[in-house]
Parts: sequence; structure tokens; C-alpha cells
Amino acid sequence: MSDRQMPPALRFMLAARRCELQQLEGLALTCELVEGASALVHDLQRERGFSNILLGTGSDRYRSALERHSATTRCSETRLREGLDTFDASLAQDRPRLLNRIACVLHLLDGLPGLRRGVLDRRLGMEEATAAFSHLIGGLLAVIFEAADTASDPGLSRALVALFNFMQGKELAGQARATGVVGFAQGHFDAVLLARLDDLDSGQARCFAGFLDHADPQALVLWHGVQECASRPQIERLRGVAQRTSASAQVEPALAELWFELNTRRLDAMQGVAQHLVLELRARCAKSIAQARADLDSHRKLSRRLAELDREPSTPLLFSLTANPLGEARPGEGQPGILELLHEQTRRLHEVEAELQETRRSLVERKLLERAKQQLMQQLQLPEADAHQHLQRLAMRSGRPLPELVRQLLGQEP
Amino acid sequence: MSDRQMPPALRFMLAARRCELQQLEGLALTCELVEGASALVHDLQRERGFSNILLGTGSDRYRSALERHSATTRCSETRLREGLDTFDASLAQDRPRLLNRIACVLHLLDGLPGLRRGVLDRRLGMEEATAAFSHLIGGLLAVIFEAADTASDPGLSRALVALFNFMQGKELAGQARATGVVGFAQGHFDAVLLARLDDLDSGQARCFAGFLDHADPQALVLWHGVQECASRPQIERLRGVAQRTSASAQVEPALAELWFELNTRRLDAMQGVAQHLVLELRARCAKSIAQARADLDSHRKLSRRLAELDREPSTPLLFSLTANPLGEARPGEGQPGILELLHEQTRRLHEVEAELQETRRSLVERKLLERAKQQLMQQLQLPEADAHQHLQRLAMRSGRPLPELVRQLLGQEP
Repeated sequence: MSDRQMPPALRFMLAARRCELQQLEGLALTCELVEGASALVHDLQRERGFSNILLGTGSDRYRSALERHSATTRCSETRLREGLDTFDASLAQDRPRLLNRIACVLHLLDGLPGLRRGVLDRRLGMEEATAAFSHLIGGLLAVIFEAADTASDPGLSRALVALFNFMQGKELAGQARATGVVGFAQGHFDAVLLARLDDLDSGQARCFAGFLDHADPQALVLWHGVQECASRPQIERLRGVAQRTSASAQVEPALAELWFELNTRRLDAMQGVAQHLVLELRARCAKSIAQARADLDSHRKLSRRLAELDREPSTPLLFSLTANPLGEARPGEGQPGILELLHEQTRRLHEVEAELQETRRSLVERKLLERAKQQLMQQLQLPEADAHQHLQRLAMRSGRPLPELVRQLLGQEP
Repeated sequence: MSDRQMPPALRFMLAARRCELQQLEGLALTCELVEGASALVHDLQRERGFSNILLGTGSDRYRSALERHSATTRCSETRLREGLDTFDASLAQDRPRLLNRIACVLHLLDGLPGLRRGVLDRRLGMEEATAAFSHLIGGLLAVIFEAADTASDPGLSRALVALFNFMQGKELAGQARATGVVGFAQGHFDAVLLARLDDLDSGQARCFAGFLDHADPQALVLWHGVQECASRPQIERLRGVAQRTSASAQVEPALAELWFELNTRRLDAMQGVAQHLVLELRARCAKSIAQARADLDSHRKLSRRLAELDREPSTPLLFSLTANPLGEARPGEGQPGILELLHEQTRRLHEVEAELQETRRSLVERKLLERAKQQLMQQLQLPEADAHQHLQRLAMRSGRPLPELVRQLLGQEP
């Protein structure tokens, strides 16, 4: 008996199961995309770092390393583009936002060769180059964000939220590396640079807390290893040095290279955690799909048996509307009736939704920030980076944390 | 140039648009389903009412009217089932919950002939028959709820939320009609019946407030007409009479018929509003689809022009990563560049999401109630109706409104 020949109630029950499986299959493709995006983010962060140190130190010592790292980035970019060429948009179904984020990334990637030439020819300043790389990395993180926000499976959603938070935290660490290079290279840190370092620190703390809330145990162990990394106390000491500099109390610009090397070691260690999170995501995806297939299969078998019982006039199934829903199973048979199957499915779908909402709650802060930025960009005709800075400055001046300020701006309850 | 031959960024931008159009087309099918479900709800409410008055008065005066109304319900049921036969589950895409709710309704409908026989043979009590009809109506309302909760278009989501709230309020009015018939038919109202009438009143007030928050202006005018309906003050007077009855101060059981007639007139008037809401929904749906098609079309044309410009080496498009995103349009051309198109799309998708969240907020209360019920059903092994009663009693005893109690039970912030 095919699904279409089933009695209507059973047919729709199976359609709901099939629908869940299709969602997971679509999600598996999205996770492959996320894997490619994560790898490219790391490569771009490294390329940004080396571009910075090249532009900042004025020496050509880092030129060949930068060219080597650019080649690696190009490989990751090619892999991602190949994946996207075969990416079946129809499987992204209900996710126009994800497709739109991918379009943004592809457009920004088209500008990457020009950016590289600008760096190698020293036509761009450090700040300008950093902003361009960061913009592209932000686009890739937005892809991971949308994947996390629209995942239909609570376990996968958790894994994606952990990955997104981690990648976001790592990106802020990367920006801190860039900011430090700027300051040390010019011999001192002004108030703006110091405030930016502070912002990046508190942002990292928030992101890594979000990561810790959703990560698997193995990821926590790996993260502990990163935190114990030998370069960390040295980075702290250099932060202290940065704090004490001023236009009249300059330090050796060579410290830029030390700062860069130490932070690069830390970021590379972080990438180990990111790689684990991606593998974990892939394993969970495969497991969820196998489980959904097995469930669909067993429900199909059970439905067929119920449908055949229903056809034999000698064993009429009595569907009482008024009976206790848990009492429908006929004694002695030990087999659930249609009503139990439906009740179980309803209960399970409720649970899935509740869990998803719980997991996604941690993404709300980021969404509100995006919304506040969009609002500012429209109202004040500001470009994105300026809108972000504007919000940060407002938060600083009002002495409130950024998320609180954002909620207030959007007229939302704290 | 087909969409697949476009440069990747444009291809994904168009895929996002196409995806939105597909969502709307799926939603249009869902709205047809909602239309069928709304009609069936009204017919079932009337059949429940006449079943009640037949069982309550003990006379056969209402038998032929009941049989006539049952025939009407059967027609609506057939129409809904025919619609479902051709309903393409693949267009319900990301909505296993909707499919599951449909399966529940279909299963409950299978029990309807048995319920009817039980009423005509007077084998069922009034309360039992009412509960069975109400359970089925509740299933149909859950279909409308899921449609509202998963709609991807803010305007349609609003229209569906208005319709759901209205239908829910009307259903509580129908249950009040049934409860009144029970009380008057037995000559007096005990504390349980009176408390139930009060609950139904406050429930109606909440639902109609939700309806008013989301309804179109024409619906408000129609609703005003229902509120001014001549039967309303008479219903109020009978409510007063009911309040003063007791086992020792009984009233004429014939009042049951008066109560029934007056409430039936009010419910029929309400159905006029429901029909308007359904027509409004259909009109909005057609409008949104036409708009999405036109948008996709114009974006496709624009993308082709941009793609062709991109190919001519004499007019290179400069995609600067660092430039002000609003400054990409080349002066004199008056045509937006890819970056503007992407920015506009991102902004629009953000707005859509924010609006949807705002609209869906009003559905949260209902979802939490469902969740609390499921929890009780599991913990105490109660059937659904008992779980609902249990919650209502808890709310009454603690002197708190039901929604507040539910949040507390689920450990949520008020």
C-alpha cells in the first residue's frame, strides 16, 4: 500500500513525518555550507592579520607569508563556490534569508581580488583593509547565523548556535589582533583604540558564554585547552603595556609583530575548537537523518497494519470521540491505535518547538542589534560600519551594555 | 539569460525572491484549507447546538432541524476532504505541525457518524455529546492556528491571527450556548456551570480583543453590528436569571429553548464576520502573490541588465568592498547596483521578520496553554479535556488569570 492509498488521517500523519525528514535533508546541505563558510572565515582572518602586519610594519618581511595565505584562502573560496554551484536552492525551502545572505557573501567575494591588490600595492590603509576583510567575514558569519536560526532540529540548532557563538567570539578576537597591530605599529594607543579593545573584550566574553551554554562536552575540554594556552598571559601583559601608552609615551613599533604572533597562535588554537564543532555538527546531522528515516519507516509499517485492520469488517476499529484518548488501544493487542500515534506525534512536535524556541532565544540579542543597525542606517543614512560604531558610542556614553541600549532603542522591554 | 547562468550573487538573490514566492503559493493553498475549516466549524457548532437542545429538552421538536443541519455539515466535510485529497503536502514544506493537525482532524471526522447516531438514539448525554463536538471543533481551530503561526507574509499572518482569534472567540460563545442549555434544561445552574460560564465570558473577551488588534477596518464595522445585535440584551437578562437559580430555586426548562434561539441568532451574525475575514484573507493572498511575482520579474530583468553590463569589458563594474554601500550607483545611470539590491533585500527581509514576530506574539499565550496542557496530560496521565479543566480550576482557586498561571507552571517570566 503506497502512502497515497492510506486512509486520509494516516496519510497526513506520514506526510508530517516525511516533511520532518525533508527538513533535515535540507539542513544537512546547509551544514555542508556552514562547514565551508567556517573554513573560509578562518583563512580570511589570517589573511586580514597578515595584510595588517604588512601594511602596519612597512617592511616586506610578511609579503611571502601573506601571498601563501591568500592562496589558501582562494582554495577555501573555490571549495565554497563549488558547493554553492550544486546547492539546490529548492532545499533551502522556507529560508529566503539564508539565500539572501549567501548572495551577499558571493558579491563581497567578487571584490576580494581588488582588495588583495590594494594591500600588496600598499594603496590601502590598515583600517581600510581591516574593515573590508571584516565586512566579508561578517557576511559569512551571517550565513552561519541564519542556518542556526532556521534549523528545524533542536540538537542541530544547539550545535549551530554553539558554532555561531564560537565563530563570532573568535572573529572579535581576530579584530582585537588587528586593533592591537594598529596601535603598536603607530607606537601608542589613543582613547578610541583602547575603547575598541575593551568593546571587543566584552563582546568576546558574551559570545564565548553563549558558546559554553550550547557546546558539547568535548568542545568544552578543547576550549579549556585554548584558555590555558601559553600565549594568553603574554597577551595580557601586552594589553597592559598598550593601556599605559600615549602620544608622549610611545613604545617600540616592533611590539606589533610580537602582539600579532601571540594572537595568531591563540586564534589558530581556537580554530581547533571550531573544527571540532563542525565535525560534531556533521555527526549530529547524519544521526538525526538516520533516526528520522527509521521513524518514518516504522510509522509507515504501523500505519499499513492499522489501515489493513481498518479494512477487515470483522475487526472494526471503534474510534470513539469521547473516549479517553489514552484508552483506545485494544487490550491484548499491545499495539497503539491511530489516536495514540497522533497524540504522540503532537506531543513530540510541541516539544521540538519548545526546545527550538529555547535555543533560539540566545540569537535574539544579535537579531535586535541587526535591527537597530538597520534602523540607524535608514534614519541617518549611515553605512553599516558607522551605524555599528554609533551604537557602541551611544552605549558607552550612556554607560549601559550594548544589548540593553539596543532593546531600549527598539522600544522593547528589557 | 536563465537564472542559472547569472553570476552567482545575482543567482542567489533571485533564488531568495523565488523562495518567497513559493512560500506564498504554499500559503495560498493553506488559506483555502482554512476557508474550508472555518465553514465546517460553523456547521459543527450549529449541529452541536441542535444536538444539545434535542438531548436537553427530551422533545423531538428539533429532530428534523438537526438532521437538516447534519446534512449541511456533511457537505462542508466533503468539500474539505476533497480539498485535502488534492492538497499537495510538498507545498506545506516546513510545516509538519500543520500536517499533523490535519491528520488529527481527519481522524476525528471519522468518528462523526458514530457521534450522530449516539445523539439521535439518545444514547449520549448532553455533556458527552458537547465534549465530542467541541473536541473536533478544537482540532479544526488548531489547523487555523498553525496556518497563522507559520505564515511567512506579515499581512497574511495578521489576517490569519484575526481570523483565528475570532473563530476561537466564537467557539467559546458556542460553548456558552451549550452550557446554558444544560443549566436551563435541568432547571438550575450549579456552581460548576456558573463558573464555566464566567470562564467562557472572560475567554471570549480575550479572544475578541485579539481579533480587534489584528482585524481590517471593514471587519471592525461588521463586528460593531454583531455587538449591537438585538438578541444581546436578552441574552444578558437570561444570564442574570441563570445566576439567581439554585436546586431550590428552579426555573422553567423551556427557557433552554429561548436561550438557545437567542444565542443561535448571535452566532449566526458572528458567522457573517468570519465569512468577511475569510474573503479578506483570500484577497490579500492573491494580492501578495501578484506583488511577489511582479517583484521577482522586475528583479530578474534588472539582474540580467547588471549581468550583461558586467560582461562588457568596456564598462567594468567596480565593486569596492570599502566604499559606502549606498554610493555604489554610478552617477547618471539612475540604476541601482548589485550592492543596493542586496542591501534593500536584506533590509526588507529584516522588516518582514520583525513584523511576523510582532504578529505572532499574540499566539504565544495559546501555545503556552497547549504546552501546559500537554505537560499535565503526561504527568498526571489525564485526557486533554480534563487537563484543561484542571488548569482552569487551578487558576480559579489561585485567583489568577489562566495565562498568568500557565506561565508560572511552565517556569516562564510573566
